[in-house]
Amino acid sequence: MPKSAIDPIKLERLAEVAIEVGVNLQEGQNLIVTSPMSALPFARLVAAAAYKKGARDVTFLFNDDEIALARYRHGSEAALDGAPEWLFKGFAEGLENNAARMAISAANPTLLSEQDPDKVSRVNRANLAAAKPAMKYISNFDINWSIAAYPSAPWAKQVFPDLPEEEAIEKLADAIFAASRIDNNDPVAAWAKHNAELQSRSDWLNEMRFDALHFTGPGTDLTVGLADDHLWTGGSAPSKNGVTCNPNIPTEEVFTTPHAQRVNGVVRSTKPLAHLGTIIDGIEVRFEDGKIVEAKATKGEAVFLKMISSDEGASRLGEVALVPHSSPISQTGILFYNTLFDENAACHIALGQCYAECIVDGHHLSKEQIVEKGGNQSIIHVDWMIGSAEIDIDGIKHDGTPVPVFRKGEWAH
Amino acid sequence: MPKSAIDPIKLERLAEVAIEVGVNLQEGQNLIVTSPMSALPFARLVAAAAYKKGARDVTFLFNDDEIALARYRHGSEAALDGAPEWLFKGFAEGLENNAARMAISAANPTLLSEQDPDKVSRVNRANLAAAKPAMKYISNFDINWSIAAYPSAPWAKQVFPDLPEEEAIEKLADAIFAASRIDNNDPVAAWAKHNAELQSRSDWLNEMRFDALHFTGPGTDLTVGLADDHLWTGGSAPSKNGVTCNPNIPTEEVFTTPHAQRVNGVVRSTKPLAHLGTIIDGIEVRFEDGKIVEAKATKGEAVFLKMISSDEGASRLGEVALVPHSSPISQTGILFYNTLFDENAACHIALGQCYAECIVDGHHLSKEQIVEKGGNQSIIHVDWMIGSAEIDIDGIKHDGTPVPVFRKGEWAH
Repeated sequence: MPKSAIDPIKLERLAEVAIEVGVNLQEGQNLIVTSPMSALPFARLVAAAAYKKGARDVTFLFNDDEIALARYRHGSEAALDGAPEWLFKGFAEGLENNAARMAISAANPTLLSEQDPDKVSRVNRANLAAAKPAMKYISNFDINWSIAAYPSAPWAKQVFPDLPEEEAIEKLADAIFAASRIDNNDPVAAWAKHNAELQSRSDWLNEMRFDALHFTGPGTDLTVGLADDHLWTGGSAPSKNGVTCNPNIPTEEVFTTPHAQRVNGVVRSTKPLAHLGTIIDGIEVRFEDGKIVEAKATKGEAVFLKMISSDEGASRLGEVALVPHSSPISQTGILFYNTLFDENAACHIALGQCYAECIVDGHHLSKEQIVEKGGNQSIIHVDWMIGSAEIDIDGIKHDGTPVPVFRKGEWAH
Repeated sequence: MPKSAIDPIKLERLAEVAIEVGVNLQEGQNLIVTSPMSALPFARLVAAAAYKKGARDVTFLFNDDEIALARYRHGSEAALDGAPEWLFKGFAEGLENNAARMAISAANPTLLSEQDPDKVSRVNRANLAAAKPAMKYISNFDINWSIAAYPSAPWAKQVFPDLPEEEAIEKLADAIFAASRIDNNDPVAAWAKHNAELQSRSDWLNEMRFDALHFTGPGTDLTVGLADDHLWTGGSAPSKNGVTCNPNIPTEEVFTTPHAQRVNGVVRSTKPLAHLGTIIDGIEVRFEDGKIVEAKATKGEAVFLKMISSDEGASRLGEVALVPHSSPISQTGILFYNTLFDENAACHIALGQCYAECIVDGHHLSKEQIVEKGGNQSIIHVDWMIGSAEIDIDGIKHDGTPVPVFRKGEWAH
């Protein structure tokens, strides 16, 4: 990968922002980082930034595209159901002992597009099941964590297929830097201001205490009931260990927990989704009492159908998120094929696991108590985009009164 | 790294030999591989070979030189005593559940030579302490495991400092292929023959039941008492899980467990030793009742002295190994700065932990029973070379009778 394509000063600043603003790594804390091999130059800068902030130990778990493909190309049946349970048990042990966690997002969005969707789904299910003991520390928000992005060559080539590789990387790097608020002499102050803005949006929604949101637009007429005692959040938030972090760099969304039993109507996706190394596009589903009862997609339908049958909760909502169409990421006009970016360019919903922090006092509730309030449970959590300039949203009060929330894709209040 | 420098057919064959002969990976078995980042091209071939042999899951733990150096360059005091305990707990869990283990040896031998030896020693001690729960499965030979080598650029440059990088890599690759018996149409058969030869050497030594070995040569007059019920072994051996593997590719040694309390005299090293990214050379030590009581080195003395004071057992022997001076690796005349090769070019001793499999029925003995028979215990196990064309070795029988074992560096019986 040509080093010259990425501004080294900005890349170093991105690593610092990821550690200071994203993870908010504490002195003496361990850090566990997952990273594609293709992001190695950035991983090294993250290691330096973390040690400068006083990390006790920084350990990386790298995943490599070629090694991932070897399982499909050469693996036996056993390999399709195999996963490193031991690694995730260790991972869970680290998080249990208050390690912070960072993920570098840089994956090749179409790595597995040539593979049999049945096999892709089996491998993913095995991996999710193995990862469960570790991932609950993330979904419970027990520790401070963050995801930040690096413009790897395979990703950049997918986003800008018509550009020469070096130019594609440079262009994706620029978009990542702008969205991550690195184009700025004081990124930390820029993030503080941005977090305050997202907080004021959340505050308003929390004051309104809507019973449901009603989305309307082309192909969409969807009522998303909200969980009892749901809580809107966005930007930075305190994790259970007391450390306030920004889980996503960048982020433009405010989001909450829908009610797993009270979602009804139809919805059409507005952007393609890169999931398990395959592009899924043109999703249309119908919900009845919270559950998807009809589903199709114009592209990647087999992978989508496999995904929503991963478990009982995989066909119910675990998140609903509001993002104005005028968001800076949306304004770039780039389709990133990466949820970290695309979900911050449009309103979206997620199938699968809900976030405990999106329910009042959720950190102190048992799984059963969260389920009772309508919080969904699943091994998956997959966001997909339903927002556009043509979407209107009303908040529905408990007495049935509608309140305009979005008009033509923009905040209306 | 220029791909053309390494014969791709031979490299693939090396990966297959590592998996089939080295690890002897079983169908449905998990495999845990540790690898320097600089060996990534070989790691990918190992993944393919392992999946072809029916692996259930193959997971790599990569270590990167730049990330390792970041701890020294930017780390706080806490970082010098920090290690990923969580990762090793997971590693131990994997081995407990019968995962096989492979290590790719390709490290830069002088990575840490510019770092403060105190810091290097602290980091290493923290890492060894953290690794202990996992490493006991190796030292107990609970599972099948193996180490094989890859000619990484930083290693090749150290071995052939006067050659251009590409030529250095090619030359090191050729030496690795020859020593690993890949230069051959049927490497599996070649390994079977070699293992039989090493077995017959071990059988003779086991029949002789020597009380001690007496090494004499320039700067060396050392009597190494052997552990009660010691057992000589070499080449392939069955691990406790019933799988016969070749722990080292290549290997030329037969070795056993010395008596930790019965080593006396002086010994001088005959080759430099690359340890913790530093070269140690010209070691001279005196043993009294098993323990080093005087020690010096002409190069890397600080690192050597730190090493032997790691714990009580670090200044006592855990292994003695016999390798004729005419061994193929010795005949290359190359100094590899890598124990996997250099220890197979000369007789050597190892300070630190003994191997349970080098005591009769050792797999079924408790740690206390092994200690009682003279088996040493330590967090370290560091081999260094004491053999040359000028070394004579006598086996000393229990009645004091000497029996010639080596004369002028060669087998004498």
